[in-house]
Amino acid sequence: MHIAIIGSGNMGSAFARRVSAAGHDVTIASKNVEHAKEAARAIGAPVQAMPLNQVADAAEIIIAATPYDQQVEALRSAGALAGGTIIDISNPLKRDMSGLAIGLTTSAAEEIAKAFSGAKIVKAFNTIFAQVLNEGADFGAGRRAAVFYAGDDERAKQSVRTLLESMGFEATDAGPLHNARYLEPMGMLNIWFGYMAKRGTAIAPTWISRA
Amino acid sequence: MHIAIIGSGNMGSAFARRVSAAGHDVTIASKNVEHAKEAARAIGAPVQAMPLNQVADAAEIIIAATPYDQQVEALRSAGALAGGTIIDISNPLKRDMSGLAIGLTTSAAEEIAKAFSGAKIVKAFNTIFAQVLNEGADFGAGRRAAVFYAGDDERAKQSVRTLLESMGFEATDAGPLHNARYLEPMGMLNIWFGYMAKRGTAIAPTWISRA
Repeated sequence: MHIAIIGSGNMGSAFARRVSAAGHDVTIASKNVEHAKEAARAIGAPVQAMPLNQVADAAEIIIAATPYDQQVEALRSAGALAGGTIIDISNPLKRDMSGLAIGLTTSAAEEIAKAFSGAKIVKAFNTIFAQVLNEGADFGAGRRAAVFYAGDDERAKQSVRTLLESMGFEATDAGPLHNARYLEPMGMLNIWFGYMAKRGTAIAPTWISRA
Repeated sequence: MHIAIIGSGNMGSAFARRVSAAGHDVTIASKNVEHAKEAARAIGAPVQAMPLNQVADAAEIIIAATPYDQQVEALRSAGALAGGTIIDISNPLKRDMSGLAIGLTTSAAEEIAKAFSGAKIVKAFNTIFAQVLNEGADFGAGRRAAVFYAGDDERAKQSVRTLLESMGFEATDAGPLHNARYLEPMGMLNIWFGYMAKRGTAIAPTWISRA
C-alpha cells in the first residue's frame, strides 16, 4: 500500500520507519518540508519526503501524526481528502498533560464522591465481568486479570489494594479518583467487546510491559 | 477484613463468594433483605445477610455493587458512611447499553470527522507509544501489542487492519468511530501510567481472554 504520514515528530518518524519496514511505500510530509526531508534521511532510502499539499493525491491511507491541536490545520493543508482514509492517532491532551482537553466531563465515581463527601470513594473492578470474578483472576499461561483502582485517599486505596491482592488480582494503581474518567470508558469498551462484539465475558483489559 | 457488599445481583453475589473465599468476613445487603438472604444461602455459611441500613457500622470496606442509577440511593440507605471506604464498581451505562450515560461528550476522532466530512476517519494507534512503535509489536512470552481501530467505513477499516497486521500488531476491531470516546480515555490512562506513574513507555494496553 502507499501510506502517507503527516508529521515528522517522534510518532511520525517511528511510523515512517516501521511502515516502510513492513513493505509499504511511505511518504512523510510536514508543514516545513525540510523537517520531513531530515526525518526521511534519518530513516533511509525507501521513505520519500513531500510538501504537505501534495500528500493526499498519492496515498491510500494517510496517518495523521501531529498533536491533536494541529490535526485539523495539517489535514486542511494536505489537499483533497474526500474519499480518502485517514488514521487519527491523537489523544486530545491538555498542554500540561493533566488530562484530556475535550470529551470528558465527569465520572460515576466522582458523582458518588460528591454525594458522600465524608466517605473515601475508590473506583475499582469496573472492568471485571461477573464471570471473571466468579472464575478467578488466573487466565492461564502466567496471565492474571488486572483490577485498576483509583482514589484520593491513600490509606483507603491501600486497604483496597490488600483486598484485591488477597483475591488474586493484579492490583494496578490507576491514580486519583479523577482517573475514573479513563477507567469507566475502558469499562464500557470491555462491555462492548463482551456483548456487542460477542467476544464473551471471560475477557479483561490489562497492560503489558516489554520483557 | 470485614467487607460489606451492597447488591445481590450477579456482581454482588460473585463478590460475596470470592471475597469470602479469600478469607474475609463478608456481609451482603440488599434493599430487599430476602434477596440478600437468598444470595447468602446460595453461597454458603460464611456469608451473612443484613438489611441495608445496618451495613455501614461493621464494614471496613463497602463494595457498592448495584447498577449506577441505584448507587446513590442504596448508599444513602446504608447509614453513616462518613470516614468509610466505598468501592464504586459501576459503569454508568445507558439503559440500552449503547454507551455511557454521563461523562462523555465527544472525541478527537469525531471532531476530525466533522471537519472532514468526505473523508473516512479511522481511530487507531492512540494507545501505542513511539517507543512501542519503534521497537515493534512483539512483547515476548507470546505477547503482542494490540492496536485498537474504530471507524464507520468498513472498507477503510479493512485496509487499516491490513496495515496493522503487516506491522505485526494484534489488530483489534473496536467498533464504530463513536467508540473513540472509549479509546481516547484509555490512551490518556496509558500516558498516565507511562509518565505520571513512571512505568515508562514500553507498555501497552491489551485484552486477555481466558485460555
